[in-house]
Amino acid sequence: MKFTEISTPTLLLNSEIARHNIARMANKCRKHDVGFNPHFKTHQSAEVGAWFREAGVDRITVSSIAMAEFFADKGWENITLAFPVNVRETERLNRLAQRVKLTLDVISAKAAITLTEKLEHHVHIMVEVDAGYGRTGVPASEHSRIDNILDVAKSSEKLSFYGFYIHAGHTYDVRGKAEVEKIHRQTLDALHSLKETYLGRFPALRISMGDTPSCSMLDNFEGIDEIRPGNFVFYDVTQYEIGSCRYNDIAVALAAPVVSAEPSRREIVVHGGAIHLSKDSIKHDDTVHYGLIARLPDEGWSAPMDGCRVRKVSQEHGIITLSEEAFSQIGVGDLVAILPVHSCLTADCMGGYLTEQGDYIRMLNWRS
Amino acid sequence: MKFTEISTPTLLLNSEIARHNIARMANKCRKHDVGFNPHFKTHQSAEVGAWFREAGVDRITVSSIAMAEFFADKGWENITLAFPVNVRETERLNRLAQRVKLTLDVISAKAAITLTEKLEHHVHIMVEVDAGYGRTGVPASEHSRIDNILDVAKSSEKLSFYGFYIHAGHTYDVRGKAEVEKIHRQTLDALHSLKETYLGRFPALRISMGDTPSCSMLDNFEGIDEIRPGNFVFYDVTQYEIGSCRYNDIAVALAAPVVSAEPSRREIVVHGGAIHLSKDSIKHDDTVHYGLIARLPDEGWSAPMDGCRVRKVSQEHGIITLSEEAFSQIGVGDLVAILPVHSCLTADCMGGYLTEQGDYIRMLNWRS
Repeated sequence: MKFTEISTPTLLLNSEIARHNIARMANKCRKHDVGFNPHFKTHQSAEVGAWFREAGVDRITVSSIAMAEFFADKGWENITLAFPVNVRETERLNRLAQRVKLTLDVISAKAAITLTEKLEHHVHIMVEVDAGYGRTGVPASEHSRIDNILDVAKSSEKLSFYGFYIHAGHTYDVRGKAEVEKIHRQTLDALHSLKETYLGRFPALRISMGDTPSCSMLDNFEGIDEIRPGNFVFYDVTQYEIGSCRYNDIAVALAAPVVSAEPSRREIVVHGGAIHLSKDSIKHDDTVHYGLIARLPDEGWSAPMDGCRVRKVSQEHGIITLSEEAFSQIGVGDLVAILPVHSCLTADCMGGYLTEQGDYIRMLNWRS
Repeated sequence: MKFTEISTPTLLLNSEIARHNIARMANKCRKHDVGFNPHFKTHQSAEVGAWFREAGVDRITVSSIAMAEFFADKGWENITLAFPVNVRETERLNRLAQRVKLTLDVISAKAAITLTEKLEHHVHIMVEVDAGYGRTGVPASEHSRIDNILDVAKSSEKLSFYGFYIHAGHTYDVRGKAEVEKIHRQTLDALHSLKETYLGRFPALRISMGDTPSCSMLDNFEGIDEIRPGNFVFYDVTQYEIGSCRYNDIAVALAAPVVSAEPSRREIVVHGGAIHLSKDSIKHDDTVHYGLIARLPDEGWSAPMDGCRVRKVSQEHGIITLSEEAFSQIGVGDLVAILPVHSCLTADCMGGYLTEQGDYIRMLNWRS
């Protein structure tokens, strides 16, 4: 199908841009001699996964058991589940551990003990540490809590300690290289200090980190053994605002048909709302918006148009403010492209992609 | 499956509450002698639709063509598509018009002309008017734009004018009966004035309105021929805050397993994030949150616990602040229930429901 034949909300994927984003990050890892363990939660697709494989990737990160099972079915054999172990799911974890090399995220001795009791197959565990983000993970300074987990691992034949993992998600709250660098520096310091403390007891321990802003913008991975960014495969308006990418690095856009035009407000309404874009928003110049607007000729989408943005979303409606020029050119029956604020959520909402070659790529259907 | 056996994020539906919500609204319509044309966008389910049928409903409203096709397949024969006509979809509309009595939402003469040119089968059209919400619809005072649409309908054998439709969505932005009543009064005034103007030329015209706050809280439907609320079937925290319902009228809650507990912040983290709840939020006492927390014993969820709320969501994580008492009672491996901020979006994210009888009810899978 050609882009111009679209009649319902459709997530467009420019495969050339996505492959370029993958190659750039893979090359960066080679240059700095760090492992590449990319997060697949953004694309959740076998086909996009294959592009990573072509770029030399053989181990991946996911954020749910459903995602781990999906990619195990697609032939991935080395999978890190970067989400605190759900102790109600040990049966599924055990079946996964039987068929792939599985690394689990453990943040309490209690969870480690449950794993030793319930699993029959061997797994690696990484200890998630928190150096300021405040979501999950053992605070990096609380060595006694870390020791309690490692003591369980040491005494169990089923658990091997893989290393420390950190997600510095607070880079999403800042803007520009200097501020991202400041957070990255704190993260590196915390990880170095952990490495120094534990390397004696665990000589093979690995240090793993990887938010997209740090991995995209910075070149200092001193003491880091591997990175695991995810969003960079598609990027989005948030990453542009942080400074991680340019507009033409954004690989996905929602094609949406225009169903209403209101001259008194210089607004159009599209079929393309909260269930398609997600309700994630961003503030730019004191104005909150839900996506930027680009033209959609047959060959793909343009750069975002000045002064045009999704002002509001309801379940199926996207309410878009246009510039005077854009309003004079776009009307009912046309298509526009919306660059998403948060591509991970938009992709998950949409469940699949249409590429510029006209192929439809399905994602994991975790709702089934 | 029993509620306590749940191991992954699962949307619970209390069918008794939902049926009670349906019966109450149906009875209100009978009492006030207004038609009941409920919106099915909230539940999107054949089974919940059957509960409406048992309550005497024989016509329904939907917000997308996919939803109209889904319910047509389930035997619904009188369907209103309350979303401005998408002129890129006339083929699908034509196929629908062949098999059901279809009423379309027309807001421009151009769209009406396209329908007369492209459709082979007869449809009804309603003209959506806007009396202050500012999303879609012809401004109620702009009679010349309304006339242009009606002129097209009058001269076409394929289009019959059904009446005027309004969605006063700005009731969602206010709190309490008095404020909702003020908006409702403006809406009624605008509709009465339209009825007076057009009843001579169109003696059969009907006036249709229906946001959940107005329909739930108010008893004045003077001059209204039918109402079409949707959210009331489940309600949610937003409707509670507006004043449309009590907590024990909320029919859905997300069951989520606890995977982390951090004493230093009195926080727990659950598997249950933006892809499950949606990223809709609400402000209460100057604090933004993404859902309220209830206990989840086997027989169903409790009232929300004081001082407990979802502070933040990321893709798969829900970060929950608990009261001291709740934190002392809830730990890793437990389940909590989250009362959603916006049940329509949470339901659409989840794709199905588990009832208290242990039945799994699937929704329309529009992503397929």
